[in-house]
Amino acid sequence: MRIELEPIGHVRGGRYEASDDHWGEVRAAIELDANRFAADAVAGLDRFSHLEVLFHFHQVSPEKVVRGARRPRGRADWPEVGIFAQRGKARPNRLAVTVCRLLEVDGLRLTVQGLDAIDGTPVLDLKPYMTGFAPRGEVRQPPWAVEIMAEYW
Amino acid sequence: MRIELEPIGHVRGGRYEASDDHWGEVRAAIELDANRFAADAVAGLDRFSHLEVLFHFHQVSPEKVVRGARRPRGRADWPEVGIFAQRGKARPNRLAVTVCRLLEVDGLRLTVQGLDAIDGTPVLDLKPYMTGFAPRGEVRQPPWAVEIMAEYW
Repeated sequence: MRIELEPIGHVRGGRYEASDDHWGEVRAAIELDANRFAADAVAGLDRFSHLEVLFHFHQVSPEKVVRGARRPRGRADWPEVGIFAQRGKARPNRLAVTVCRLLEVDGLRLTVQGLDAIDGTPVLDLKPYMTGFAPRGEVRQPPWAVEIMAEYW
Repeated sequence: MRIELEPIGHVRGGRYEASDDHWGEVRAAIELDANRFAADAVAGLDRFSHLEVLFHFHQVSPEKVVRGARRPRGRADWPEVGIFAQRGKARPNRLAVTVCRLLEVDGLRLTVQGLDAIDGTPVLDLKPYMTGFAPRGEVRQPPWAVEIMAEYW
């Protein structure tokens, strides 16, 4: 069974090459496809401070996708963990989800900050961030998952 | 441009019909595709308390997808907002993202609680929930986005 998606828009500007860290201050735009959408598709979005952006890691070639385990970033001091126990980009279906700040809505052009996607990235969905969808109950995570985020934003 | 995805697994058990509210206590399993994955794909996942699950709203027929604005749940007391300013399922690409609790990892079978997906739902990706990916900065949202979550979990 296959599922076919069509990007709803693309990332414009911000970074032009992927890098591991320091995404927090990066500003970019998300431009929605004007052939399929009008401004009513984002009506009311400016009432939210944050967006959840689903995008495609389009620069990962399918043959590089990992199905088993590996060390995040290849770091010898971190454990070998399964691809579904980490958020690395060489993953099956190459899907990404990131919450970023929404700075401005201008028609079909959204200015965002802290989106870890490069110029040209296909955007697959946008959702408003609602606090009601935050994790319920106490969050537990291993030390490497904290260490990997130290310089990320 | 089209992007083709293949489900990595399916939701088994839990609810058999979609409903709006009271998902918090629902337990279900996610069964990963044993033809493509082995247990190393989820090695180390049990160190995380929560999972981010990307799935497909497969029961929404494509002709029902909304591209403009509508009132969430059709509620007259809530504003008309764009499909990308709400999290309703009749959305372009029909993609869903939910954070749920991970109760147990048994080979390729994961037991979860509070996943708002019905039996048979195609799962497209799993990511460990890391606190470093929570929203940076203060979250702002309109009143309806709080009210809609009142009975959700």
